[in-house]
Amino acid sequence: MTKKCINVGLIGCGVVGTGVANNLVNGIAQKRHLPCELRLKRIADLYPHKERPYKIPLDLFTTNADEILDDPEIDIVVELIGGCDFALKVITKALEKKKHVVTANKALLAEYGREMAALAKANGVDLYYEAAVCGGIPVIKAIREGLTADSINNFRGIVNGTCNYILTGMCKYNMLFEDAVKAAQMNGYAEADPTFDLIGKDSLHKLVLLIANCFGQWIKPEDIYTEGIMDLDQTDIRCAEELGYVIKLIAQAKKRDGKLECMVAPTLISKKSLLAGVSDAYNAVEINGSPIGRTVYYGEGAGMNATSSAVTADIIDIARNIYYGCEGRLPVFALEGEKCEKVPTDEMEMRYYLRWKTDDKPGVISALSQELTEREIGISSVILHEFAKAQPYSIVTFMTRETTEKKMRDAVQALNKLDCIQSRTVMLRVESGF
Amino acid sequence: MTKKCINVGLIGCGVVGTGVANNLVNGIAQKRHLPCELRLKRIADLYPHKERPYKIPLDLFTTNADEILDDPEIDIVVELIGGCDFALKVITKALEKKKHVVTANKALLAEYGREMAALAKANGVDLYYEAAVCGGIPVIKAIREGLTADSINNFRGIVNGTCNYILTGMCKYNMLFEDAVKAAQMNGYAEADPTFDLIGKDSLHKLVLLIANCFGQWIKPEDIYTEGIMDLDQTDIRCAEELGYVIKLIAQAKKRDGKLECMVAPTLISKKSLLAGVSDAYNAVEINGSPIGRTVYYGEGAGMNATSSAVTADIIDIARNIYYGCEGRLPVFALEGEKCEKVPTDEMEMRYYLRWKTDDKPGVISALSQELTEREIGISSVILHEFAKAQPYSIVTFMTRETTEKKMRDAVQALNKLDCIQSRTVMLRVESGF
Repeated sequence: MTKKCINVGLIGCGVVGTGVANNLVNGIAQKRHLPCELRLKRIADLYPHKERPYKIPLDLFTTNADEILDDPEIDIVVELIGGCDFALKVITKALEKKKHVVTANKALLAEYGREMAALAKANGVDLYYEAAVCGGIPVIKAIREGLTADSINNFRGIVNGTCNYILTGMCKYNMLFEDAVKAAQMNGYAEADPTFDLIGKDSLHKLVLLIANCFGQWIKPEDIYTEGIMDLDQTDIRCAEELGYVIKLIAQAKKRDGKLECMVAPTLISKKSLLAGVSDAYNAVEINGSPIGRTVYYGEGAGMNATSSAVTADIIDIARNIYYGCEGRLPVFALEGEKCEKVPTDEMEMRYYLRWKTDDKPGVISALSQELTEREIGISSVILHEFAKAQPYSIVTFMTRETTEKKMRDAVQALNKLDCIQSRTVMLRVESGF
Repeated sequence: MTKKCINVGLIGCGVVGTGVANNLVNGIAQKRHLPCELRLKRIADLYPHKERPYKIPLDLFTTNADEILDDPEIDIVVELIGGCDFALKVITKALEKKKHVVTANKALLAEYGREMAALAKANGVDLYYEAAVCGGIPVIKAIREGLTADSINNFRGIVNGTCNYILTGMCKYNMLFEDAVKAAQMNGYAEADPTFDLIGKDSLHKLVLLIANCFGQWIKPEDIYTEGIMDLDQTDIRCAEELGYVIKLIAQAKKRDGKLECMVAPTLISKKSLLAGVSDAYNAVEINGSPIGRTVYYGEGAGMNATSSAVTADIIDIARNIYYGCEGRLPVFALEGEKCEKVPTDEMEMRYYLRWKTDDKPGVISALSQELTEREIGISSVILHEFAKAQPYSIVTFMTRETTEKKMRDAVQALNKLDCIQSRTVMLRVESGF
């Protein structure tokens, strides 16, 4: 016998929560998709009276999450509090009470996803989290259900809207980093303190979840080299452009010889690639698998609307499972893949972009190139422009052939000691192998 | 009690069928995704001994489809025969025998999808067809399951790999149409007789299925205006480029004032849009919905590998339904939307590209523009280049503002009567409202 009405409890009614509440209260979508009723029964939030962009019935609100967690009538708990402390308590209790959970909490899942998945399985309930990776883009669904015939070789993604908005400003509108950050804040694409996004942490959490789904591996966030965009200079945006590249903050993972290479870092992407065309706050993930080949998924990476769409779709998906009595139909994290160990960052192989401010005098190019040659690092392109008259400095750019991170870092240390350079070496990764 | 082993019968072992058989025989994927065994029990094909790119055990083959359709052990029938006659019999019988069906047959579904869906529902079995639209791209899944919280406003897609490969050849490599077609055939991207693709029929069938899923409406193929790429001239590729556009064969549908506008036609797409970057045999669909905003799905549109990936993923999806006893969990065609009637083609509103070969003499521009002005069709841009010396002709290009198809066609009739033009008017649609 199937349920006539499925009850949802929402914990955390901030930006995204308000969008979800609005979707459920209006209930247009689910009417089209569900044979049963889907009802938002209760909302737990500390500030019921806060000004919200949509009108949510006040009588739905409580300030006590336990009113939802202890309510036997509630089937699905939606956790949109964020953070790892209280949210962890909420999700744990919900699962233990055999309630299905929908969350957008990437930080929590990157840290405790494995345990939460086990807990969900043990209690025979679903834990969905489409909104945790790339806001509205149904990329988790694509991987868990659409690419089930494929073994995934690699993926790379622009998964942080804030950074992409800032990089777009620097690249398209020649803004300085600080100004691009201000613009992002003014337009609601960056928090008052955007550090968490800018240092790549948010991208890292999404990378961990994508790896878990694409490769069935759990890599600890702290084991993945992560570099943000805070040191990016307008000069490098321009030099990259001259070389035919744009700089994007890329989260990527790649299988090579049965081992896993992964990293979050600002990366030079060929202007010709689709990802290069992903601007503003949009996200995109490129996934290469066999037999399917290359696929790309694109959409808004954050914001009330896109994210609330993903959360609501998860709710509807789970409601379908409840209605048809197939809870646990999908593993929480897809593809229990054969163990493949992570390549130490030092041993990762990539091409590199190097840029210096140097003295404007003879011998500079040979000095720079010699340091690389001695370490068997090949140079694939060089840019040095002639000035009309003598300048206080020159800008020199190298692109290297594939080498290891270790060799490159050692080379940079040595390069930084050269008398002829006036600034520390700028070292960026260049896309390869996609 | 759940099944230990789910049996699949494959009917039609051509290019895609061979890929699917190979996926199932190797069975790497499903092992990672299914708690039960998935077994390819039988293959029906008229040519068991035909040379195939993968080794398929000969003892699986029969030349008699009924051996599969009448086998009570077989749970899922995969129809990869193509065409509408025998395939229709096969699917009908399979569904009546309460077997789940996976097909890639867009022509059949565009024609009989509604009836087949009803038949599947009546028999409590699933009918999946991800591979029927955009080969490997899990776009049907995205619409049916990922965007369930959204009301879709419009979509547009490059859904035919053959045409896109040819247009890429004309646009990127300056090939003439005939040469681009030959190149496509040489590289296996076009059939010996590619007419069906070139006249837009294949795109039309996919459009019908996308409309059914996005809007819950069944529009008859014959009711949708469909124009192919057979008359495309290199000149127009170049003129479009000068205007900042590329020409793609676009299948699109749009809700406007509660009514539905849809069409398949070569269309000028801004170079800046993501779809403009979709080259070669790749496909992509852009879907705009509320609240999710704009999403794009990209991948290989055809071929053994991509298509076999989608078919196999459907098989795994259905196997999950069987194992968990939730057959019919998804409606065959999503979103039973409120009826919205189709706008007659004549009343559709668009911008247009017009191009002529005209006499090289005074009065031409005024004569051409007057015909438009009289019909209140605004002109947004004009290109006429000066030649060093007098030429036997001039090339004149107009871009119009939004007007109705009817007004535009009438104008073209009148324009074709002008003495000053040496060729019939070339009229193409220009993207708008996306």
